[in-house]
Amino acid sequence: MTKQEPTLLLLLFLLSCSCFPVNNAQSTTILNVWPKPRNLTWTLPYQVIIIASNFTISTTTSHHNKHLSAAITRYQNLVRSEHYHPLAPPGVNISTNLPPLESLTLIVQDPDVELVHAVDESYTLSILPSSATLTAKTTWGAMRGLETFSQLAWGLPTCIAVGVHVWDSPLYAHRGVMLDTSRNYYPVKDLLRTLEAMSMNKLNVFHWHVTDAQSFPLVLPSEPALAGKGAYGSDMVYTPEDVKTIVEFGLDHGVRVLPEIDVPGHTGSWALAYPDIVACANMFWWPATGDVLAVEPGTGHLNPLNPKTYQVLKNVILDMTTLFPEPFYHSGADEIIPGCWKTDPTIQEYLSNGGTLSHVLEKFINNTLPFILSLNRTVVYWEDVLLSPVVQVPSTILPKEHVILQTWNNGHNNTKKIVSLGYRTIVSSSDFYYLDCGHGDFVGNNSIYDQQNGDDKDNGGSWCGPFKTWQTVYNYDITYGLNEEEAKLVLGGEAALWSEQSDSTVLDARIWPRTSALAESLWSGNRDENGKKRYAGATDRLNEWRSRMVSRGIGAEPIQPLWCVRNPGMCNTVL
Amino acid sequence: MTKQEPTLLLLLFLLSCSCFPVNNAQSTTILNVWPKPRNLTWTLPYQVIIIASNFTISTTTSHHNKHLSAAITRYQNLVRSEHYHPLAPPGVNISTNLPPLESLTLIVQDPDVELVHAVDESYTLSILPSSATLTAKTTWGAMRGLETFSQLAWGLPTCIAVGVHVWDSPLYAHRGVMLDTSRNYYPVKDLLRTLEAMSMNKLNVFHWHVTDAQSFPLVLPSEPALAGKGAYGSDMVYTPEDVKTIVEFGLDHGVRVLPEIDVPGHTGSWALAYPDIVACANMFWWPATGDVLAVEPGTGHLNPLNPKTYQVLKNVILDMTTLFPEPFYHSGADEIIPGCWKTDPTIQEYLSNGGTLSHVLEKFINNTLPFILSLNRTVVYWEDVLLSPVVQVPSTILPKEHVILQTWNNGHNNTKKIVSLGYRTIVSSSDFYYLDCGHGDFVGNNSIYDQQNGDDKDNGGSWCGPFKTWQTVYNYDITYGLNEEEAKLVLGGEAALWSEQSDSTVLDARIWPRTSALAESLWSGNRDENGKKRYAGATDRLNEWRSRMVSRGIGAEPIQPLWCVRNPGMCNTVL
Repeated sequence: MTKQEPTLLLLLFLLSCSCFPVNNAQSTTILNVWPKPRNLTWTLPYQVIIIASNFTISTTTSHHNKHLSAAITRYQNLVRSEHYHPLAPPGVNISTNLPPLESLTLIVQDPDVELVHAVDESYTLSILPSSATLTAKTTWGAMRGLETFSQLAWGLPTCIAVGVHVWDSPLYAHRGVMLDTSRNYYPVKDLLRTLEAMSMNKLNVFHWHVTDAQSFPLVLPSEPALAGKGAYGSDMVYTPEDVKTIVEFGLDHGVRVLPEIDVPGHTGSWALAYPDIVACANMFWWPATGDVLAVEPGTGHLNPLNPKTYQVLKNVILDMTTLFPEPFYHSGADEIIPGCWKTDPTIQEYLSNGGTLSHVLEKFINNTLPFILSLNRTVVYWEDVLLSPVVQVPSTILPKEHVILQTWNNGHNNTKKIVSLGYRTIVSSSDFYYLDCGHGDFVGNNSIYDQQNGDDKDNGGSWCGPFKTWQTVYNYDITYGLNEEEAKLVLGGEAALWSEQSDSTVLDARIWPRTSALAESLWSGNRDENGKKRYAGATDRLNEWRSRMVSRGIGAEPIQPLWCVRNPGMCNTVL
Repeated sequence: MTKQEPTLLLLLFLLSCSCFPVNNAQSTTILNVWPKPRNLTWTLPYQVIIIASNFTISTTTSHHNKHLSAAITRYQNLVRSEHYHPLAPPGVNISTNLPPLESLTLIVQDPDVELVHAVDESYTLSILPSSATLTAKTTWGAMRGLETFSQLAWGLPTCIAVGVHVWDSPLYAHRGVMLDTSRNYYPVKDLLRTLEAMSMNKLNVFHWHVTDAQSFPLVLPSEPALAGKGAYGSDMVYTPEDVKTIVEFGLDHGVRVLPEIDVPGHTGSWALAYPDIVACANMFWWPATGDVLAVEPGTGHLNPLNPKTYQVLKNVILDMTTLFPEPFYHSGADEIIPGCWKTDPTIQEYLSNGGTLSHVLEKFINNTLPFILSLNRTVVYWEDVLLSPVVQVPSTILPKEHVILQTWNNGHNNTKKIVSLGYRTIVSSSDFYYLDCGHGDFVGNNSIYDQQNGDDKDNGGSWCGPFKTWQTVYNYDITYGLNEEEAKLVLGGEAALWSEQSDSTVLDARIWPRTSALAESLWSGNRDENGKKRYAGATDRLNEWRSRMVSRGIGAEPIQPLWCVRNPGMCNTVL
């Protein structure tokens, strides 16, 4: 190809008008970036130029950060090849008097700052007719800016608005997705695609709830029997090599992989390898008489009074800290069911000697938390460890500087309880952020459904129904009712997908675009500059963003008829 | 390959044990066919043989029915190549003393009987060690039997139980899926895959709600402007060739394609081509003051007082009867919104002269129904045409022998109303059979979601919430409260997917396996031989069937953790 050819091609492109349908009634002058940046301006006169087909992203200084290099390569390819066709294209013609944009210059102050909680993710982006510049303090801010740049480009030939200035930085440092890979298994490629989609949404924490009572899919070098016997099958495991792939892929996409091995509850799957360390394993969860043994089918709690428990568990924890460099480690500690522990003779004896189940849990925490802390980890527990009305430990054994509590019950009330006690918190309110809710219950032989009157049926049998719509997710204010000091302890939030009724077939649609709603709410908030909730405008923008995610290979579910995007405002209510 | 080789291969297969894992704790002796046949016996001693790799399906008499031939070829390939691995394989070893099954002999009494309502779909199937025979009166019964045979085969090498006898015939003649392709568009391949999945579930009617207020995707030879201007785009249409493909594919799979052009309401999309025949087109659906103009965004009703309406509509109907050979024709007639018609000056004048909106509708029906009947069609209307409390016509103009009413409101009450008036009915109760419900509302700018207390929020904002679980679908008794004579007028039922929040990304998971629950309930019922609801056993069977559908390329959603299938009974409740 000679140097003359691009001009010729440009002329052909303009003739074909594929980039800007003239007289398109659905055009808009709003540039769509999701999550909406904190500050984006497009200076008048609105101008659009073509991006050169050999467009490059260059860095001003040489660097050796492999994650940054990976991101640069990825975004360069994306910008060159995506050619996204907006549902409602910006209604501005290409400025034919301006030359194509040849490159984006990237300036990263310290590319080797590691991806950890509260790392600087800010960036500034200027797209001028003559040049485009992205500036960030860290590799991770650079990735956020590259994503923004990619979303500002569209069409065939690829166009981009110029006279655009963006300053951006997240409101909350912790913006995540929790995925349960125990109730049903997901192939590695599903997890990688989820990390990719998270990166598109500027989310930065993949909370991987790896194991639970139903299966133990993680192959641990020191304890291979756990997955060897506890996985659903030898083809339904994550090997150490898989973990390495996932962790590196996460870093390449600016996403921390925060692992959870939920103990001492939710451990029935451990009993296949170590029956003696698990109380009430493989018993019927809901006996006709006596105590319930689990919150759902799949019984088993690690036995804190058996020394062997800690032999196995410490091997597990050591392996986990080797496999996962992430400085946060999630140790679960939710939903201790008294009936389960009470089936164990040693625990029964302990209780008959005046001990309590809370003491049993305290022993467990005292035998594990210091060990995890010695490995330089900040420990995340579910709130239950402190707030459970049934079995809990005193705050004195949970050092506030090293322990974070993830809240999921009682909405704002428990957030308030946690931060008023001085703990940092991550918000996953089941009333707002649980993505699995509203699909009915999964237990069998349940006569609740055998009725003929069409009543509500207890939210369709889902304990946490109804379904959490994207609007419900979007509008939740995670620091509602907190004072300024308390609000600082709210690190952010996570949308959670428990997988009793999910697997590969529905993963994308369950997570997206509802988690995009969370992503924007935690990145730049859910209110406009006047403090008004911006859900109306978000609807149109989310339609567009969902469409773009689908074109990028993420099976996000639709939120409206296409007609609504084509007829802006016509699908609103006056409520 | 020489004749000795199969024996050698057989030995190798048996050594590898891929067909029957020895000591598999999850094995079962239940043969899984969905929907469960009316009568299936597996005679002791339980025996299993291999199906020859060159297995054939042969007919005793030569025939020229192309749909039967297509089915034979398809099932022969499927049986040879599927190699489905059951989640819980039948716990019986291969009888190595028995030779492989070489063929299935098919006897069809009258292969050229056409696929129409109430056609005979019965069949008998015998699988003996020496031979297998399938007998049916019609091509359509043969297809049902072939499906059953295919589900009885599994593994690598392919195995099948012998000593099996099946007699089968559906309880209800009309077993369908309704899909709306107007709110969002589905590519042709999605429709074909849906027909394929329907066939697997022995469903026989694809009710295609082709057009609505939002888009008119069907290219009609006599009225090309309707799709030309009313489709979402030239790449989002169904051409006459597409329709032919879909109809033929349906017949090859034993599925009637019953088209619906919903009139006079739900016609906003017609106004893009013919603005003068549509009242209240493109107006804001929910004005701040005055009457609501539509049940949801997207306004427009055909104007029955404009003669041009009938010119266009008769062209449409003629084209439809040409494109669709199916003897049933659905003409909609649901949800007349007074506020819409009242915006039209000619209707206003009619009303001021003492007319009523019910008279307006009566004019419309009188100007269209006789015409459709003259084309040898049985007309299906939504129940509203007769039962709407606001705008309805007298039963005197709806001849009972030619009109069927499809019910969707008030559960059993409206079914009873319809049949007690002497009309045949198709049941699509929105309380039980609406697949879109429970995903929240789709209208924008709705402050209902902006609250912070986690309350029910009106079923998550979905008018027909909660989500209809497979159990809800399964347990609905469509003739509940009817006497014997009335029950005979219930032709069957349809699960309905309205597509405001659905498109390609979620189609399979929204429909399956919940519509499998409907399929079994309408084929062989939801009760065992003692009259007890069989939902407990259905759970395990549906897990297996859903897994098989997924392996056949249907993205059905999971209903339980895999753990439940692996631990039979352990996921039950005692309720």
